Amino acid sequence: MKIALAQINPVVGDFEYNFSKMRKIIKESLRKGISLLIFPELSLCGYPPEDLLFKPSFIKANRKYINRLSREVRGRMVVIAGFVYQSEERAFNSAGVLSGGKVRDVYSKILLPNYGVFDEKRYFHPGKDITVYVDEDIKIGLTICEDIWGETVVSGLKRENPDLVVNLSASPFYSGKLSLRKSLLAGRAKKMNSFILYCNLAGAQDELIFDGTSMVINPQGKTIIQGRRFSEDLIIFDTQKKYRPVKLRHNTVEDIYRALVLGVKDYVSKNNFEKVVVGVSGGIDSALTLAIAKAALGRENVLGVIMPSQYTSKETLSDAVKVCGNLGVKNCVISINNIYDSFTKELSSFSHFSGFSLAAQNLQARIRGNILMSFSNQEGYLVLNTGNKSEVSVGYCTLYGDMVGGFGVLKDVYKTKVYKLASFINKINRKKVIPQSIIKRPPSAELKPNQKDEDELAPYPLLDKILKLYIEKDECRRDIIKKGFDPKVVRKILSMVDRNEYKRRQSPPGIKITPKSFGKDRRMPITCRFSS
Amino acid sequence: MKIALAQINPVVGDFEYNFSKMRKIIKESLRKGISLLIFPELSLCGYPPEDLLFKPSFIKANRKYINRLSREVRGRMVVIAGFVYQSEERAFNSAGVLSGGKVRDVYSKILLPNYGVFDEKRYFHPGKDITVYVDEDIKIGLTICEDIWGETVVSGLKRENPDLVVNLSASPFYSGKLSLRKSLLAGRAKKMNSFILYCNLAGAQDELIFDGTSMVINPQGKTIIQGRRFSEDLIIFDTQKKYRPVKLRHNTVEDIYRALVLGVKDYVSKNNFEKVVVGVSGGIDSALTLAIAKAALGRENVLGVIMPSQYTSKETLSDAVKVCGNLGVKNCVISINNIYDSFTKELSSFSHFSGFSLAAQNLQARIRGNILMSFSNQEGYLVLNTGNKSEVSVGYCTLYGDMVGGFGVLKDVYKTKVYKLASFINKINRKKVIPQSIIKRPPSAELKPNQKDEDELAPYPLLDKILKLYIEKDECRRDIIKKGFDPKVVRKILSMVDRNEYKRRQSPPGIKITPKSFGKDRRMPITCRFSS
Repeated sequence: MKIALAQINPVVGDFEYNFSKMRKIIKESLRKGISLLIFPELSLCGYPPEDLLFKPSFIKANRKYINRLSREVRGRMVVIAGFVYQSEERAFNSAGVLSGGKVRDVYSKILLPNYGVFDEKRYFHPGKDITVYVDEDIKIGLTICEDIWGETVVSGLKRENPDLVVNLSASPFYSGKLSLRKSLLAGRAKKMNSFILYCNLAGAQDELIFDGTSMVINPQGKTIIQGRRFSEDLIIFDTQKKYRPVKLRHNTVEDIYRALVLGVKDYVSKNNFEKVVVGVSGGIDSALTLAIAKAALGRENVLGVIMPSQYTSKETLSDAVKVCGNLGVKNCVISINNIYDSFTKELSSFSHFSGFSLAAQNLQARIRGNILMSFSNQEGYLVLNTGNKSEVSVGYCTLYGDMVGGFGVLKDVYKTKVYKLASFINKINRKKVIPQSIIKRPPSAELKPNQKDEDELAPYPLLDKILKLYIEKDECRRDIIKKGFDPKVVRKILSMVDRNEYKRRQSPPGIKITPKSFGKDRRMPITCRFSS
Repeated sequence: MKIALAQINPVVGDFEYNFSKMRKIIKESLRKGISLLIFPELSLCGYPPEDLLFKPSFIKANRKYINRLSREVRGRMVVIAGFVYQSEERAFNSAGVLSGGKVRDVYSKILLPNYGVFDEKRYFHPGKDITVYVDEDIKIGLTICEDIWGETVVSGLKRENPDLVVNLSASPFYSGKLSLRKSLLAGRAKKMNSFILYCNLAGAQDELIFDGTSMVINPQGKTIIQGRRFSEDLIIFDTQKKYRPVKLRHNTVEDIYRALVLGVKDYVSKNNFEKVVVGVSGGIDSALTLAIAKAALGRENVLGVIMPSQYTSKETLSDAVKVCGNLGVKNCVISINNIYDSFTKELSSFSHFSGFSLAAQNLQARIRGNILMSFSNQEGYLVLNTGNKSEVSVGYCTLYGDMVGGFGVLKDVYKTKVYKLASFINKINRKKVIPQSIIKRPPSAELKPNQKDEDELAPYPLLDKILKLYIEKDECRRDIIKKGFDPKVVRKILSMVDRNEYKRRQSPPGIKITPKSFGKDRRMPITCRFSS
């Protein structure tokens, strides 16, 4: 029996597009003599559809297209595809079992995740019945994503003694998730003494990256086939064949790089943009963002806008020009000095507007934001935001200034990781596209003379360690201090994180690459007087 | 037996503040001979605490403060107060039953809402046990919020035949919610043949307003006591006394007005601001926002900034000045013309920047945004956003322009309702604080010559009807057209709503006054190709 796992990249809500893609793969699989073809979780409508699920017309489209899809399934072939099933006004996260031109059966996800970025209990009712099919004397258990992570469904299936357990998945990427996933699936395979056929989405949707990497795991818990990472793939498993375990190493930094490139590519194209604009400061965040944008979209679709002020050093400006040149990206230089002067002239009569005040610094950042948005509005560029997780965490950024943009490329990337990504890019490009001078210069916002990030915050390696403990581990001040960090520094950083929730609430969406990103992953009140 | 319902206004995460407030009421109740004192749902920590619930230190503070609170409860008095209880690493939305200086029992909410603005299944495990207490021969059933809305807990309690059913609540306001609540509680009282003592929070937390209006309902379903609307109150029910049904009429527009005033007041003060700044255009939205700000904070804490351009008519400018004068609010006038010219001078060499283009219009709005933010950064004003629900729905507003601000006062108020609120304000002030000329002039963004909102969108009464059907009822295009609306107009409006999700994602939080607001109530993907 030949089984295919189709890790596809659907578009949320684009039924016609998703259907056509799936039909093409069904045809290809028919030609290849596939008996069983698996598509990922909710692949027909895209994942996660969020509140589209409350629209009766959206549910109806699911029914229409699963029926259309079933009519493509001919001969003895069976197709299993994720879609939204509705019965008695209740919606289910389901898998349609299609054969002989019909929807033969519907399995519904039993365990609904409602943590992290997931809100499935908001939308779905849980399925009830553990489901096992027998085809060509092979006993196949069916599960959807979370079903295989929890205990109840696995224990139920184990009693049925299946040969293969299929898992339709939409499992969001973060750095380290793959090894977690593999060790979980290995344990499940051994526990059920069964092959596991794990079929994951591949593609990006808003803040989430689905990294593909569908897998076949043998009953000994070894991965014997593995699909591509971060792109579509069709992997074929022949139950008659012998397979040896595969060993594929993944580089953490490369993984993140590919996630970011995919995230930008899909956000831009799925939202019908072609071109992006990046404010290039001569610093490392914008250099990295520019390099990722070029990798995602091609240099012809990227514009660098360089906006020096009186505080921009000659070196920084020259680096900004250089990095555009190295990447082959068009750039233009627009000084903000005259605009800044016209603002201060108008404002100085109304408030005590000093040149080095926070307001004056913010104003410079906002003028730059305005210029970028003018390019967006006038020429149809999407503005990519360049803010990293360290600065977004502590609010070291200007709302409506450097925080403008349709999409935050580095929003979940700590500054220390930004450096690693820059080195990685220089390595894979075999020439230093990001100038060493950018990598070596101490980071500065250059909004007043002699400004250095690390003077105003803390050294980045220290900052990032504290942020991880506070944001991702939910540790309290006392426990962090106990780990040996300077109490003064800890107190300052935690209070900055708490105080800046209002800024993050208005920040562009960005790509999730850590276990807990800002966005649906972390839902803090703005009005809040708790300090841990 | 004398029972008191304390509808209080706690601050999320401010245990010391909430505890002190509750202690004061306990002391007062002891003096008044109260036997049973009820505080609302999660009143000890504030509602909703959102992801603070994942912080072990937050849970720990709940335990510490409920114990401290219990030590305040002396003699024969019983206090029931909402707090977060943890057992075996699981958190519960609970009510502590305090007496004799101890936490005597803990009841945990059985039905956890996970729809609309609620995410309780993200945080809490459901309680299991229906709970009835007997005190002075009176049988008292205990419920928390949703418990009384669903069927299971009510049916369980009915079998116990209680005399009184207490409900600790944190029920967010929207226009029309009170009558829904009343008719539900009346039905529940009759079904259980029991009094219902309904104790609701009073105060605002980010986008939510808790409208107080605690109630005692008799077994015949009649309201016999009712607490204040939109403010703290202590209401006392004596089981020995006879009560007649009360009849209190509520004016829908007044309700909304009071909700908005409370929303502004609490957002500003709970976030440690004192003063706000409003961009006053001479149009009705900013006039209304200014009036609400004055009512919430006093005229001395409100500043109007008037920012005319070459497209601002003399009449509009004079109305802007006039409304500030009528309200006794300080204002300053800053022309944006010079700043605009300095931008166009820099930009014109790089893009085909025409004076009437969308980019040029947006630029004007963004210059105004920058000016307002400069006042905020320099002088510590919170910027109040003036955008209404109609324009936020269709994206008829400029990101980082008129969309700036810390808090959106009218974000959930349709334009047609804006007019009603303006008339209401003129009525209660006994003089026309909002000039008739503002009310009568056709709304215009005044970003190019002869611009009228209704030319670019649709007449507001029509627009608002279509928006309600689409956003609040989730009706599809076809069904809306079937109701007799022009298909072209419907198509245009629905597509504008869909296309502008990215703008709403970066908009300031704002006050919920309808059944479905933008924010936690409506979670749409940005990347989405579904058109219903």
